[in-house]
This record gives sequence, C-alpha cells and structure tokens, in this order.
Amino acid sequence: MRPSGRNPDQLRDIRLTRHYTKHAEGAVLTEFGDTRVLCTASVENKVPPFLKGQGQGWVTAEYGMLPRSTGDRMGREASRGKQGGRTVEIQRLIGRSLRAAVDLEALGEHSIVIDCDVIQADGGTRTAAITGGCVALVDALNTLVANGRLSRSPLKQMVGAISVGVYDGTPVLDLDYPEDSSAETDMNVIMTDRGGFIEIQGTAEGESFEQQELDAMLGLARKGINELFEAQKAALAG
Amino acid sequence: MRPSGRNPDQLRDIRLTRHYTKHAEGAVLTEFGDTRVLCTASVENKVPPFLKGQGQGWVTAEYGMLPRSTGDRMGREASRGKQGGRTVEIQRLIGRSLRAAVDLEALGEHSIVIDCDVIQADGGTRTAAITGGCVALVDALNTLVANGRLSRSPLKQMVGAISVGVYDGTPVLDLDYPEDSSAETDMNVIMTDRGGFIEIQGTAEGESFEQQELDAMLGLARKGINELFEAQKAALAG
Amino acid sequence: MRPSGRNPDQLRDIRLTRHYTKHAEGAVLTEFGDTRVLCTASVENKVPPFLKGQGQGWVTAEYGMLPRSTGDRMGREASRGKQGGRTVEIQRLIGRSLRAAVDLEALGEHSIVIDCDVIQADGGTRTAAITGGCVALVDALNTLVANGRLSRSPLKQMVGAISVGVYDGTPVLDLDYPEDSSAETDMNVIMTDRGGFIEIQGTAEGESFEQQELDAMLGLARKGINELFEAQKAALAG
Amino acid sequence: MRPSGRNPDQLRDIRLTRHYTKHAEGAVLTEFGDTRVLCTASVENKVPPFLKGQGQGWVTAEYGMLPRSTGDRMGREASRGKQGGRTVEIQRLIGRSLRAAVDLEALGEHSIVIDCDVIQADGGTRTAAITGGCVALVDALNTLVANGRLSRSPLKQMVGAISVGVYDGTPVLDLDYPEDSSAETDMNVIMTDRGGFIEIQGTAEGESFEQQELDAMLGLARKGINELFEAQKAALAG
Amino acid sequence: MRPSGRNPDQLRDIRLTRHYTKHAEGAVLTEFGDTRVLCTASVENKVPPFLKGQGQGWVTAEYGMLPRSTGDRMGREASRGKQGGRTVEIQRLIGRSLRAAVDLEALGEHSIVIDCDVIQADGGTRTAAITGGCVALVDALNTLVANGRLSRSPLKQMVGAISVGVYDGTPVLDLDYPEDSSAETDMNVIMTDRGGFIEIQGTAEGESFEQQELDAMLGLARKGINELFEAQKAALAG
Amino acid sequence: MRPSGRNPDQLRDIRLTRHYTKHAEGAVLTEFGDTRVLCTASVENKVPPFLKGQGQGWVTAEYGMLPRSTGDRMGREASRGKQGGRTVEIQRLIGRSLRAAVDLEALGEHSIVIDCDVIQADGGTRTAAITGGCVALVDALNTLVANGRLSRSPLKQMVGAISVGVYDGTPVLDLDYPEDSSAETDMNVIMTDRGGFIEIQGTAEGESFEQQELDAMLGLARKGINELFEAQKAALAG
Repeated sequence: MRPSGRNPDQLRDIRLTRHYTKHAEGAVLTEFGDTRVLCTASVENKVPPFLKGQGQGWVTAEYGMLPRSTGDRMGREASRGKQGGRTVEIQRLIGRSLRAAVDLEALGEHSIVIDCDVIQADGGTRTAAITGGCVALVDALNTLVANGRLSRSPLKQMVGAISVGVYDGTPVLDLDYPEDSSAETDMNVIMTDRGGFIEIQGTAEGESFEQQELDAMLGLARKGINELFEAQKAALAG
Repeated sequence: MRPSGRNPDQLRDIRLTRHYTKHAEGAVLTEFGDTRVLCTASVENKVPPFLKGQGQGWVTAEYGMLPRSTGDRMGREASRGKQGGRTVEIQRLIGRSLRAAVDLEALGEHSIVIDCDVIQADGGTRTAAITGGCVALVDALNTLVANGRLSRSPLKQMVGAISVGVYDGTPVLDLDYPEDSSAETDMNVIMTDRGGFIEIQGTAEGESFEQQELDAMLGLARKGINELFEAQKAALAG
Repeated sequence: MRPSGRNPDQLRDIRLTRHYTKHAEGAVLTEFGDTRVLCTASVENKVPPFLKGQGQGWVTAEYGMLPRSTGDRMGREASRGKQGGRTVEIQRLIGRSLRAAVDLEALGEHSIVIDCDVIQADGGTRTAAITGGCVALVDALNTLVANGRLSRSPLKQMVGAISVGVYDGTPVLDLDYPEDSSAETDMNVIMTDRGGFIEIQGTAEGESFEQQELDAMLGLARKGINELFEAQKAALAG
Repeated sequence: MRPSGRNPDQLRDIRLTRHYTKHAEGAVLTEFGDTRVLCTASVENKVPPFLKGQGQGWVTAEYGMLPRSTGDRMGREASRGKQGGRTVEIQRLIGRSLRAAVDLEALGEHSIVIDCDVIQADGGTRTAAITGGCVALVDALNTLVANGRLSRSPLKQMVGAISVGVYDGTPVLDLDYPEDSSAETDMNVIMTDRGGFIEIQGTAEGESFEQQELDAMLGLARKGINELFEAQKAALAG
Repeated sequence: MRPSGRNPDQLRDIRLTRHYTKHAEGAVLTEFGDTRVLCTASVENKVPPFLKGQGQGWVTAEYGMLPRSTGDRMGREASRGKQGGRTVEIQRLIGRSLRAAVDLEALGEHSIVIDCDVIQADGGTRTAAITGGCVALVDALNTLVANGRLSRSPLKQMVGAISVGVYDGTPVLDLDYPEDSSAETDMNVIMTDRGGFIEIQGTAEGESFEQQELDAMLGLARKGINELFEAQKAALAG
Repeated sequence: MRPSGRNPDQLRDIRLTRHYTKHAEGAVLTEFGDTRVLCTASVENKVPPFLKGQGQGWVTAEYGMLPRSTGDRMGREASRGKQGGRTVEIQRLIGRSLRAAVDLEALGEHSIVIDCDVIQADGGTRTAAITGGCVALVDALNTLVANGRLSRSPLKQMVGAISVGVYDGTPVLDLDYPEDSSAETDMNVIMTDRGGFIEIQGTAEGESFEQQELDAMLGLARKGINELFEAQKAALAG
C-alpha cells in the first residue's frame, strides 16, 4: 500500500502550466502532485567558449531549490558560495537529457539555458524538471522561428522523465517524498517519444536489486513516460 | 503621464496570498502588479553565534532573484559563487526592517529566517518583500504560539514598505520597472503601522533632489503604506 | 549632553590632508575627529565592460577597514575570502555619491577608482570617505587636465556627506562611535554644494522616528555639510 | 573491430597492486590497461556532523585527476578553487557504491575516506576507482580489526564496477578512451559479488538506446565484473 | 652609483612611530625611506585550534597592501576573493620571524596577531614589516604585563630584517624600488639582536650568484640590522 | 647519529624515472628515498596575459600533495576550495628555480607548466620536485625541437636542489621526515650546474643559526647537488 493510496503504476496529478512568467521565452510551472518546479528556457545569442565558431548551438541547464521548498530550511547555495554536489549532479543530468531533444547543428550558434527552480519539493524534482523543461524548450525554439532567427524548429524529439523504485518490496511508479525517503531502490528513467532510452540511473539504497526488479521498474517507467508525453502534447496544444 | 496609466498616488494591484507553499511556517506570495515575490518565514530553534546565551531571538532575511525573473537572464548567484552587491544590500534592508516588527527578547532563543525569492520582477521587489515578508513573519510567530513554544506572539507592530520617486518631474507612488529605470529620484520608505519611519533610502539618479520633492515623496509613501497595512490586515483575516 | 561635550550642531575637527601618499593621482587623509580614512583616487584608461565603446567614463569606489582600525580586531576580508555585507553596502554608497560629482560623458573613457581605507575608526567612516574622496577625485580629474588627456575638468559639483542622528532624545550632528553605538536613529545625508540631496539613508535602531525628527536631522545635516564644503574648498586652495 | 583489437567481451589487463604507498591503511594502485588510479583508504576516528552520536560509521570518497593525467593538461582544481561537476558526480558515485560494501553500524563511529587519484587516464577511471577502492577499503577495515578497534571486519560484500557501451553498433565491455569518446552509449554498472546491482548509469550520447542493447550491455557487465571479483580475490590473497 | 645617491652600505632614513593608532595594543608606523607600513599587534585570549589546551601561545602575521600603495593600482585582494601568492609568502615569513622573538610557553594561551598594512610601497616592505612589527609586538607583550595577565614579558630577543642585493654588480644594503626592480640578486636577512640568523632568503633574478657575493651581502645585512636594533631601542625608549 | 643511519653528507637513494606516464611531454617519477614526486612538464602554445606579444616564453609550476601522501590524511585542497599557504610558497619556489634553467626569449611564445604531485611524502618534496622537474623540463624542451617548433633547445643550464639542516647539533644533507620535523635549522639550496646559487632559503626553527653553521650547510649542499647533477645526467642519457 502506497502512502498516497495510489496504485503501483499510477502517476501523481501532472500539471504543465505554460507562460507562467512573462519574461522568459519558455516558462512552464511543472507540477507532479505537490512537487512544483518552475522551468524557464532562455535564448542567448552566443555559445560557450568550447563551441565558438563551430556553427552549432548548445542546451544547458541549471537547477536550484528555494531554501524553504523542503520540510527543513536548506542553506541558500548563493550565500554558502557554492552549489552542492546533488545540485551539480542533477543539473548535469537535466542538461544531457534535454540536449537529446535538439538538433544542435540546426540550432546554429544559439544557446538555450533551462533554469529549473524548485518552489516546493515532494520527491521527483529532477524528473519534473526534465519533463516540464522540455516543454519550455519547445516554446523557446518556436520563439526563434517566430523571430525569424531560424527557419524551422530544431526539435528532434520530445523527452520525458519519471522515477521508479522498489517500495516495501513492490515496484512503483513516480515516487513521492515519503516513498523516496524509504525506498530500497530508486531509478530515474529518461526516454524519447520514439521509445528509446536517453538515460537510466538506478541506485540501490541499502540492499542491491536484481535483474527482475530492474525489468519491472523499466516497464513501469515506460508506461508512465508515455502518459507524460500525452500531458506535454496537451499543454503544447493548449 | 505614467506608462501604466496610473495616477501619481496610485498603487499597483496588491495581492498577498498566504500558505502559497506547504512546508514553511509562513509562506506568502506577494504581488505588486507584475512583481511577484515568494516570502517564506522559517523558524529555527537556535540563534546566530553572536547572540548565544543572551536569551533573545533574531530575525534575518535572504533575497534572491530567479535567473529569468528579469527581461534578460541574470547569472545564477549560486553558480557564480557569490551574492552580488545589490543582493546583499537588499537582504540587509529587509532584515533590519522586519526586526523592527518583533520584540526580540520576547521571541526567546529562536530565529526567524525570511527568504524572499523573486519569481518575476517588474520594479519594487524589495518593498514587496518587506510588505509580504511581514505577513509571513506574523504567521511564523503565530506558529510558535500554536506549538506552545511561546505563550503569546512577540509581534510589536506591522511593517510595510513602498517605493516613491520623481518620474518625469512628478512625484509618483510605487514605481514599476519602466518608471524605475528612468526615474530621476528613487526612494524606498519603510514604516510601522503606528506611523513612524523604520528606514528611508532616497537616491538621486543623475540630478539631486530638493527638500520639497522629498516632502512630496514622503507624503505619497505614507498614503501608500497605509493602504498596504489594509492589505496585510485583510490577508491575515482571510 | 554628548559624550564628547560637543554642541548638538557641532562637527568634530575636520582635517583634509592632500598628497598624503605619493603614487595616487589623488590621496587625501581625511580626519573627522579620531576617524581617519585614507582616500586615494586612481585614474585608469579603461571602463568596465558594460560601458565599453559608449564614449563615457565611470567613477567607482572600494572601501576597507584595516583589521585593527577598530576596538576589537576584525578578521581581514582578504583572508576570509570575501567582503562583508556592510563593506559592500558602504562602497556602493560611496560610488553612487561620487558619480554625482562628475559629468561622466565629459570624462570620456576613463575610470576613477576611489579607494577608502579606514586607518582608525571612531564613527562616521562612510561620510568621511565621501567627503575626503571628493577632494581626491578633484585632484585626479585635474591630473587628467594637466596631462592633456582632457581639456577641462569634468567636475560638475562638490559632494559632501555627514551623519546625523537622535542621541538620547536629541538630534545631533556628526555622531562619533560612542553616540553611534547607542543612537536611536542614524542617518547619513549626502548633498551637493548647490544644496540638493544626493542620497538620504535613515535607519531607526529599535524605535521608529517621526517626521519632526527627520526634519530636525536634515536641518543639522545641511548646516554640517556646508561647513564640510568650506573645508574642502580650503584644502583644495591649500 | 575494437581499436585495441580486443574481443567485445574482453577486459583490459587488470592489475591491483596493494601497499603501493606506505602511509595509508589501504593503498592500491589500480590499473585497467593504461588507466592508472591510486586508491587509498584512510581511517578517521570521527564521523560527519550529521551522524554524530548515532553509533554508526561512514564511508566517503574523493576523486581527482592529476593535471596531466590526460592528453591535454587540465587546470588544477585546487588552483581554480573548486571541483568541477564531473569530479563531484564521480566521487559521489564512488562513495555510494563503496558504502554498499560495509555494514555501517558494525563500523561504529569511524569514517573511511577513499581517495581516488588518477595518475594516467585512458577511459574507465571511475570503474577502476570503485574496483580498486574496494580492495583498499578491505585493507583499511582489516587494520581496524588488527588494531583491536573492531572485533571483526564490517565488510558485507565485495563491490566491483565496469563500463559497457555500444561502440560502432556493437555492445562492448570495458571501454578505453578511444572507444569512450566515440561510443553511442556508455553505461557504468556496479554490482556486488552476490550478483545484485548497486548502481546502473547508462547515458545515450547522441542517439537513444533500446531495451535489447541494454540487456546485452548488462550481460557483458555481469561477465566482466565477475572477472574483477576474481582479480580482487587474488590481490587480497597475495 | 645607487639611484638614491646612497653609499652601498647605507640604510634609508628609518622612522618607527609608536602609538600611531589608538585601538591596538601595539601600533607602529614603520618608515624605511618612502616605504611606509603600519604594523599593529593585537592580543587575543585564544589560540588556534591546533594549539588548544597545550598551555602555549602563538604569534602570527597578516600582510596587505593598500590598492594604491603602488605606482599602478593593484586589485584589492578582499574584492578578488583571495590573497595572492606573494602576500601569502610574505605573511608567513613575517609570522615565522616574529615567533622567534617570543617564548611561546611563557606567553600562555594568548595569541598576538601582527597586521602589516602597506600605506606606501617603495621596496623592502617585508623587512620594514618585520622590524616595525617587532616593536609593536613588544608593546603588546608589555600590555599583557601591565594588565596583570602575565607576570613578566615573554620577549626572548629582538628581531630585525633588511634586504640586501647585488645592484649593477655591487652588493648594496636596503634596496629601494628602483634598485629592487633591476637587481641581479635580492636577499632578505632576518636576525636576532644576539647575532644569529632567523631566516635567509636569497633569490637570483636572471643570473645566479656566487659564494663571494653571498658573503658580501651577509656582511652588509649584519651591519644594517645592527643599526635597526639601535632604532628599535630608541623607539622603545622614546 | 641520523635516524636512517646515513652519514651526515650522504644523500638518500635518488631515482629519476623518465616517461613514467604517457601523455605529458616530460614525465619523471622522482624518488629521494621514500619521497616520491611525479613531475610532469606540459607544453602550451600560449603565454600568460602579462607576457602577450612580447615574443618570450614562460615556465611555471604547480605543486600538490595527494591527500594520503602523508602520515595523517590532509584535506584535499580542491575540495576545500583553495591552496594552502605552504603549497603556494612551494610552487612559487619551484617556478622561479626552473625559470633559471631556460632562455625565455629563445623559448618563444610557449609556456611550460611543471606539475609536481607528491605521491608519498618523507621530507624534501620541494627539492625532489625541482630536481626531477628539471629533467621533465629538458624532455619537454626537446619535444619542441623534435616537433620542429624550435630549432634548438633553449636550455641554459641544469638546476638542482637539496635540503640541508642542523640536526641534533650536526649539519646534515638531505633531511628525511624524522630529521626535518625536529631539525633546529632547515635550508633549501638551489644551484645551477655551473656552480652558482639560484635560491637559498634557510629558516631557524626555535634557535637561530650562526655564520659557521651556514657555511657548513652550504658546503654539504654543494656536494649533494653535484651528485644530483650526475643523477640527472644519467637519467637523460638513459
């Protein structure tokens, strides 16, 4: 029995609210149940130094948690003077995942920066960030077309992400915080809407996990991400 | 004529939404027109080192802007490794202002941290932060009473803040970004609901300002802050 | 009764010693009683990145306290690896104030950096820094003329600064440390020699202050700053 | 055809040299072909602050590359003043993986720090670090027993790690640098000698990967890691 | 011929002004010609962590240059966020040298911090800092006696320092900036008033130096430092 | 009697292993007894900003200790976010010493970076770093010739370094850690193979040292360094 009463293969309520703020080229408030992440996509007319003059673009991401997005207040990273290891790890994952959505050569010498800021945390912030960040990215790419800077969108495919895990012996989909903090295994799965894997990160907490559990979790993930693709499609059509 | 069409003595729409997030003891989404600041108040059962063992509490504040709360993306302070001078200046102002609302000895050895995070910026973020932060502070103090940690709230008085300025030769109330960026003079006024001043910070941009302009601005500020006290009262009653 | 025995409207002894060191284009040892601040003005043939190619100049300031300028030794900011919030706040105030003295377009693409280093602190270091820094600035601007880099000095007006406050119920001028540390209200006023305000920063410590006290403090400030303009004039004539 | 001429399921030469340096409680030079990582395990009689007084121990890891362990010199992280994102990500992975080898409660209030310093890089440094670090960890745990600080070793199981990937369309085991830099998919697999998974991290570079490729890679990994367990056993018996 | 017209074995004018500032236990303005260093000695009732509970004291030093103490403005270390390598090297030398003057066990659990801040630089700032810092140190130690915290001063011996070098082929004493910047060899010699060496640091700039030059330089240093001991004695008697 | 049983004028076993790693242009494992330092020399086709466009090259050095190269684990400088004072002091010494070996104008606009990483510490790491770093430097310079980027090597002379000290009243050569940690005086001497001094750094620990001890130490150093030049020659011939 899950703490929330959900079925093992049931997502939380997913809400993707576009144009949540007015300045960014893409701005999507992403809610997976009580988890709320603001994902903005910003277009910059330059690329990082290592790509200069190569005629291709770049997509990168930064992640942050508001200090009181969590049950106990976390120190503000800006005031401590550095980003923690978990933050760095997550923003690198988001960046890698969303780069897979874009044809970087077709993007030309533009960068898209995806900022994922957690307003309220209840488990699954990184998967919410990737899923909502992809919608913000689409909006930003379309802005480049609308502005005449690109003739067509360099979007290759949609990308979605969900967590799965083994909770109390049962493989479950989309872990919330109470589940996440006591799950035996926690895995984040990132896929494309063509059905391929972009990234799989599975971690045993305490006990190791077996091939059979892995297979069950991957099956749940595939089902959940397909529902996320529907939610993305609906939001972009809205 | 103001860009927004407002009268010189007219505030923007003020909205104070309590309980905007679920974890913090106080959490107020503060909107002054398009400016949106999330103010959370967190209770900590300890005081800074310089107050240890003195039997009194502390109130402090931290301020941040989401990277794309502004027209152009600003670098993330956490990733640059330090808070900018403007950030430091603003959070010190917020902290000083809100300490004036509380009887620190009656607070006992607790700290209240007010986090003010700008979701969307359109001028006046620091005055929104103080005004909404005071409501979050009240909620946090009441939590201490509800939890039995204090017998009654150490709130001394409400504190509100507004900006005034001289725009195109005319003293105006509550500057939005288009006004702020071209005003000749910009002043932030922080007052108590008993009518006294907590802090006045007036700055000439370019030309200096005269006593008569100062008096006109202070009159506007007093009028506007009184309306803010009404908004605070309504929110706390709601 | 003031601890120093001064009248409420009496400045401390003001001494402005030009050419105190030999390398800087302007170098003024500024003494307000026991407060001693060395203000140097350095000319640089470049402007900050945000001004490049715009044909105008810049004036900025940095502030520091020698570790043992104070009663207790303060940690050295260079060794702690960052400037404290108070330092940042003060140096931004000095920079804004002294920019008001100069026609930045007439300055051309030069920067003037005003370094204000506190040798001995006894209250009022920021107002001493602005008042003496303005004299150092004049010397630096005249160097540009003497060197043939400018045809005439881009000085627009002199700028002076003084603190006022409410001490033991009485408005007083030019607070020294014993007054400053127990004043109910502390205000720094920066004016031009044409009689306009550049900046007003008034802060209630503990109790709020009333309009009438504000007016009394501003009157004292105006009187004191006029005496500072005399001192500046005498120093520059010397 | 692999650049090295190896079969798809063939490891590089594996060498684990214990007691490579004299000061550390465990010190293993770990070589996977030309990749050379020095793994030391240091015992400390204290635990991190978040574990104080809980009667359990901790295992953590730090990772670094000598500046010229790579083809081009990399800037020294100590002199740049911070560890890069890749470094942070890798050392967190090593730490999580090796904690799985130890019964932290049986360890008592001791910490084991695993330092993994890359002397020469040729692909697979993190898997070499985990595999060799586990041997260093065993030596350090045995030191605690030999010193009478623990009555028996808190080792639960051995942990090994290997990379697998899809290179030129073929799933291959233990990628070296030429393969790693052009592989379509790169996965690191960490397992216990009881056959369970500790961590799986698979990343598509460019194109996504399919379930069938995933299964093939996991099969190769299991075979390779079993050979690593043999190498660990031989080294510990040596 | 030296640029200053001095004889090869002639010091610059040496001035040691005690009580230059009022807060520090020792405060000596040290002038070697145009080089001016303010040396303060601060007593702290604690020792660094590595000495806690060992019943002995500590002497340490910090060094800084005011940004415009030099011909070109140097960036402020506090604002760059770290002390440069030269600064670190110099303050370590000052600390080691002055520790040799004190019986650390007789000092008890007190620290003396010597702050050496360069007001104006013209070569030889580190030797001026050590020579004047020793006088400030004596004043601080005597304060401990005057306050009854020690029964007698733990001073063991006086310490003095001077630079020598080979300028234009000739060994010379007490190099000023024009000499320092073109000398072939530069050596700093620190001695006790009993005639022993505390530290010798000689560096060839460009060409190496020979035993015979070394001997000549050491002879000059001994002569110069003896004159410094006279100056210290006179200052302390004054 | 020395702890190692060596004669006072006896070096430890010196081993210089070239080509210890495969990527660097020069890579020398340098062993002075149990002290092991990996010295790599990297060629970069650029010079530091202060040398741009001046047609000359640069030689610089960085130094680091692996965290467990020592008896107790030292915190990793990369993770603490800055290099300690001792590290900075040592790497500046290595850089100055090795620049003396090269005709920087003949080097053209190339930089050679010498990285000295201590694998195992047992006293004398800085002298091992200079002595072995010089061999790595020679290899790197020869690479520039082999690649056709220079027509002949800009090597001017070989540089070697050794420590000497007064241990238990006796001047001794090449101090190991047990000697170093209790020596009364410790001196590092850097010389050229033409017999001149590059740098002398002698420090009294506790008691000062006399001219006669200085002379004895310099004699030992000269003897030892001559043996190091033989070892360098043999390695380069090997």
